Amino acid sequence: MAQIAVCGPSECTPEEAEAAREVGRLLAERGAVVLCGGYGGVMAAAAAGARAAGGIVVGILSGRDRTGANPHLTVAIPTGMGEARNAIIVRAADAVIVVGGSWGTLSELALARRGGTPVVTLGGWRVLDSSGRPVPGLLAAADPAEAVRLALAGRPDG
Amino acid sequence: MAQIAVCGPSECTPEEAEAAREVGRLLAERGAVVLCGGYGGVMAAAAAGARAAGGIVVGILSGRDRTGANPHLTVAIPTGMGEARNAIIVRAADAVIVVGGSWGTLSELALARRGGTPVVTLGGWRVLDSSGRPVPGLLAAADPAEAVRLALAGRPDG
Amino acid sequence: MAQIAVCGPSECTPEEAEAAREVGRLLAERGAVVLCGGYGGVMAAAAAGARAAGGIVVGILSGRDRTGANPHLTVAIPTGMGEARNAIIVRAADAVIVVGGSWGTLSELALARRGGTPVVTLGGWRVLDSSGRPVPGLLAAADPAEAVRLALAGRPDG
Amino acid sequence: MAQIAVCGPSECTPEEAEAAREVGRLLAERGAVVLCGGYGGVMAAAAAGARAAGGIVVGILSGRDRTGANPHLTVAIPTGMGEARNAIIVRAADAVIVVGGSWGTLSELALARRGGTPVVTLGGWRVLDSSGRPVPGLLAAADPAEAVRLALAGRPDG
Repeated sequence: MAQIAVCGPSECTPEEAEAAREVGRLLAERGAVVLCGGYGGVMAAAAAGARAAGGIVVGILSGRDRTGANPHLTVAIPTGMGEARNAIIVRAADAVIVVGGSWGTLSELALARRGGTPVVTLGGWRVLDSSGRPVPGLLAAADPAEAVRLALAGRPDG
Repeated sequence: MAQIAVCGPSECTPEEAEAAREVGRLLAERGAVVLCGGYGGVMAAAAAGARAAGGIVVGILSGRDRTGANPHLTVAIPTGMGEARNAIIVRAADAVIVVGGSWGTLSELALARRGGTPVVTLGGWRVLDSSGRPVPGLLAAADPAEAVRLALAGRPDG
Repeated sequence: MAQIAVCGPSECTPEEAEAAREVGRLLAERGAVVLCGGYGGVMAAAAAGARAAGGIVVGILSGRDRTGANPHLTVAIPTGMGEARNAIIVRAADAVIVVGGSWGTLSELALARRGGTPVVTLGGWRVLDSSGRPVPGLLAAADPAEAVRLALAGRPDG
Repeated sequence: MAQIAVCGPSECTPEEAEAAREVGRLLAERGAVVLCGGYGGVMAAAAAGARAAGGIVVGILSGRDRTGANPHLTVAIPTGMGEARNAIIVRAADAVIVVGGSWGTLSELALARRGGTPVVTLGGWRVLDSSGRPVPGLLAAADPAEAVRLALAGRPDG
C-alpha cells in the first residue's frame, strides 16, 4: 500500500486548506495511507479529507505527547524529537505532496529530495539556484488531482 | 484509542511468539492500536495476532526503508534512525508490554520507564539494583490476558 | 563560548571551499567552536580552516561510524540517524553560516529558521515565496568576514 | 583519539560522584575525549574531572537549549530529541563506562550493547536473564583505574 506524506504550514490560507483536503480525499480513495505532521492547517485538512473518505492517517508529531494533534488522525506518533521528526515523515513516505510554504515545510521538501523521495508541489515556495534558475527535481502540479496522480505514479498499486 | 507497544527480541522462542501473538490478538479485540519495531520474532508475532483480529499495527523501523519488515504491518514507518527509533516506539505508546529479553528490548523497557510510560513484563530479563533487589516500576503479568489488562488499565476506553 | 555551524554541500566549487576555509579560520580566531556535518566539501574546508587557526571543530555525522569523516575534526559524533542529524547541527548552533547550495544544505537552513536560529548566507540557493519575493529571515553576507561578524553579532562574547 | 562516554544518573551518591570524577580525570590524562549527557550528578562529575585535567568534554543534551547543562562542558550539543539522544551518546563512543544506576543509564547501557559498543560497569544495576543468570557482555571494573583501562583496551592509541 502506498504511503504519501502531505506537508504544509500549520497556518494556511482557505485555498490551501481546501487543496489539502482534496488531496487527502483522493489519496484515501486510491487506497494510500496519508502521513503528515499531525497538527493544524494543511496537516489537519489533509487528515480530515482522508478520514472522510475512509482512509488511514498517521500523524508524526514533534511533541512528547498528543497535545495539539488534530482530531482526524487514525494513529498519532508523538516522537518527542522536535523538528527532527520532519526527517521521519519524508523518510517513511513513498512520495511527498507539498501544499503551501513555511520554513518547516521547506525543510521537509529539502529532506525528501536529499533522500531521493519524489516531491510534488502544489503552489508554495520556490527554490532558485545561485544563477536564479529553478533547482530541478520538483514536480509541479496544477491541482490536487494532478498532485495525487504524480505522487502515485510508478507505484505498482498507484 | 489506546496505543500499546509490544516489544521483544527479533529471535524468540516458540513460547514467546505464542504469547506475543495472543497479546496482539487481545489488544486488537480491545480496540487498541499495536505499535512495534516492525521486524521479526516477537514483533512479527504480535503484529500477526493483531491483524488476524482486524486490528491496526504500526511498525516503527530502524532502517531507511521497509527491508526486513514483517508482512503484518498496516503502516510501516522507516525512520532511518537506527536504535534511536526505540525511543519513538515507547514515547508513542500509552503502555509497553515486554515479551522476552534482548539488549534492544531492555533499551525499550528502560526508555519507557525513564519517560514515565507504564511497562508490563511477560517473562524476560530482570533488573536488580546494586543491593540485589528488583528495581521497582515494572508490572509483572502471569499471562497475555493479564498483560493486556494491566496495559489498558486506567485508559478511559481501556 | 559561541558555537557556529557552517553548512554547505559535500561537493563544492573551489571558490566555496576557499570561502568556507576562511569562515572557519575567522570563527576559530574569534574563539567560536565550529559545528559541521563532518564530511567533505564545505564541511571539510570549514573544519580545516578552523583547525589551522587552533580552533575546536565538532562533526555531527549522519552515519553510524566515522567512515568518510574529514580528518580535521576535533570530535566526531556519528549519530546513526541519517539526515535527521541536520536538525541537531542547527539546534546546537547559536547561528548558522551557509556556504553554497544543495538539498541537504537547504534542509539545514530551513530547520534553523524553523527553530529560530539566525542564518547567514554566503551565496547559495535562494528561496522565494509564492509571489516571487525573497522569503525574509536570512542574513546575506558579502564575504566571509561579514558572515562571521553577522553570525557572532549579539553574542556577548562574540 | 579515543572517545569514551561516561553514563550515570543525574542524582547520585557522593561515592558515585567521586568515582565519576576520577574516571573523567584518568580519561583526560590518557588523551581521550569524554562524552556525556551534559547534566548533573555523574555527568557533571565526570566532566569536572576531565576538564580539571585539561581534557575535552562534549555534553549531548536531551533539551532544546543549554538549560541545565553543567558548567564543565567544552562543547554542549542540545539535540532537542529527548531521550533519543541516549542513542547518540553511545553510538558516538568507542566504549561506555557506567557509574551507578537509573532507568536512563540502563537505556544507555542497553543501547550500547545492542549496537556492539563495549560497556564497562562500575557498580550500578545488574541485568539477569530469565534463568536468573547475569546476562553476558558487560565488563565489571573494581575501580576507576580498571574501568578506564578496560574502556581504552584495544584502542591503538588507548
